[in-house]
Amino acid sequence: MKEWEKYVRKVVPYVPGEQPKEKVIKLNTNENPYPPAPRVFEALKELDATDFRKYPDPAASELVDAIASFYGVESENVFVGVGSDDVISMAFLTFFNSEKPILFPDISYSFYSVWADVYGVKYECPKLDENFGICAADYKRENGGIIFPNPNAPTSIAQPLEFIEDIVKSNEDSVVIIDEAYIDFGGESALELTKKYDNLLVVQTFSKSRSMAGMRIGYAIGNKKLIRAMLDVKYSINSYTMNIPSIKLGKLAIEDRAYFEECTGKIVATRERVAKELKKLGFVMPDSKANFLFASHSKVPAKELFEALKKGGIYVRYFPKERIDNFLRITIGTDEEMDAFIAFVKEYLEKR
Amino acid sequence: MKEWEKYVRKVVPYVPGEQPKEKVIKLNTNENPYPPAPRVFEALKELDATDFRKYPDPAASELVDAIASFYGVESENVFVGVGSDDVISMAFLTFFNSEKPILFPDISYSFYSVWADVYGVKYECPKLDENFGICAADYKRENGGIIFPNPNAPTSIAQPLEFIEDIVKSNEDSVVIIDEAYIDFGGESALELTKKYDNLLVVQTFSKSRSMAGMRIGYAIGNKKLIRAMLDVKYSINSYTMNIPSIKLGKLAIEDRAYFEECTGKIVATRERVAKELKKLGFVMPDSKANFLFASHSKVPAKELFEALKKGGIYVRYFPKERIDNFLRITIGTDEEMDAFIAFVKEYLEKR
Repeated sequence: MKEWEKYVRKVVPYVPGEQPKEKVIKLNTNENPYPPAPRVFEALKELDATDFRKYPDPAASELVDAIASFYGVESENVFVGVGSDDVISMAFLTFFNSEKPILFPDISYSFYSVWADVYGVKYECPKLDENFGICAADYKRENGGIIFPNPNAPTSIAQPLEFIEDIVKSNEDSVVIIDEAYIDFGGESALELTKKYDNLLVVQTFSKSRSMAGMRIGYAIGNKKLIRAMLDVKYSINSYTMNIPSIKLGKLAIEDRAYFEECTGKIVATRERVAKELKKLGFVMPDSKANFLFASHSKVPAKELFEALKKGGIYVRYFPKERIDNFLRITIGTDEEMDAFIAFVKEYLEKR
Repeated sequence: MKEWEKYVRKVVPYVPGEQPKEKVIKLNTNENPYPPAPRVFEALKELDATDFRKYPDPAASELVDAIASFYGVESENVFVGVGSDDVISMAFLTFFNSEKPILFPDISYSFYSVWADVYGVKYECPKLDENFGICAADYKRENGGIIFPNPNAPTSIAQPLEFIEDIVKSNEDSVVIIDEAYIDFGGESALELTKKYDNLLVVQTFSKSRSMAGMRIGYAIGNKKLIRAMLDVKYSINSYTMNIPSIKLGKLAIEDRAYFEECTGKIVATRERVAKELKKLGFVMPDSKANFLFASHSKVPAKELFEALKKGGIYVRYFPKERIDNFLRITIGTDEEMDAFIAFVKEYLEKR
């Protein structure tokens, strides 16, 4: 080993869901099956490559203003980044600097522990209860910060607003981050609470409900002091993170409220139908408020089904992790995709 | 002060050059005055917003392969990021983890100290000599890493390849990063040396010579171990940094070698002409190998001229910093822009 290799940062990187290049039914990374808003198509046509020679607006004001306007907050309450991963990573770096451990559930978005490791943040992971519920009591002890997704991933379970408020109120000494990547599929957002509590940061993304995973746009909303602190850190790392297409197309995407509601409504309807059908086939699952189902079959091991589906050209997500290793996370696709998925599963169960 | 505010990361953020929204002659952020390659315009027309609903390829393979092919290296030798700022920031986090101070010149890209501060990396800044040259001897002592731009910014001075090789060879225990943001305007790239030295990382960008600042694309080339280590850290922070337009348009931008050579050639020719004219007007400046000049007038203070130019709608960059506070950094624009700049300066000097 060379001397310089001794000082290379040691990490265990997060493994993202596969992005297969061949044609498959892709229900493994919680993407939206519908295209972005019609206005995004128009805005794309209007982009002029001549403008690309110049740096983008480092504040991404057009995009920030559009988000602020959609949610009825001020622009100083909004932080944008390259996907919600960038936003949360920046929040870790900005807020989680005490010696006390931060808290997040043992079953949750697996990136939290990766960020904590890379930035040297101590953490503890209270266990979800036997129904995969978050226990509020676990988040009422000394801590250096709190983060969890609502709805939680991969469990799909949403907590009501009073539950969130109780945790935020009980932790006024810490920054509490609610990761609302999946909130638009039936959960109650904590956005309103950011006006009441200065220690609450709500993170959302364009990747799911806005059909823009490929554009990499995430955002956080919180009181001005929180946002200012994140901006200061962001400007210390990379002043220009949002490129011109993200700023321009992101703005148009968020302005189309009707399309957004239509799209999320369709996904919720498909989810409810698929949940019913899967239950008929012997699956159990929590009530989902996300764009995916977290399902386990009473007889067939999840891993076996995962591999059979993959061979059949249908990708879902499987986590080989204690307590959840008999579950599949199934993204809600179009009705046609879900019909193909159900037909495959039905046939597999019959033939087995 | 709230308790949580005590644990907010304290930073002194980098201040980027202004991005004025009104119409001005913008010679302050070293952008390329010419549009991106014609193929970028074509590729933009071919982008289909339907694809944006899906995550991009986390490895950005199309772009990585195109860069590798352009430079005659393998794809495993290439790391891409959201501008070279993202790439260098990732390199700091990956490689600069020893207790020994890293070294970079006192007059250099001002972001280096910002990254060092935010990541808690110790650093020392050897002084440039009286002609703003880097002294090789200063980089032959124990250190935790070395970084400097070649050509240096804002001095515009390039070091020859032997100079770079000498430093790389003398520091086999450290990672040496050569920041070649401006290399395509007349300097000698150290890329070839990455095949010979495993501790050398060369960083370049699409923001200057490729006219793509607005797309945010930077890259590093080095041996496979260095690149693998950076990828591991990158995947621990944000798996999907490069959005679909950056991957697609970046690929096409780098493939157009003829346009790239034509563009950089024009800028070099304009630079040489402007340097001559400015010298006639009483300016002194080092020989520039970048797309900017670093000029000082024998009689008029730089700050005064900076402010007069700004009032006149011409933006250049001024750094209120010891040793260089009587210099202006003037980006090379089109011939028309530079004529307007020279005419303004000439008139200002005559009227003064």
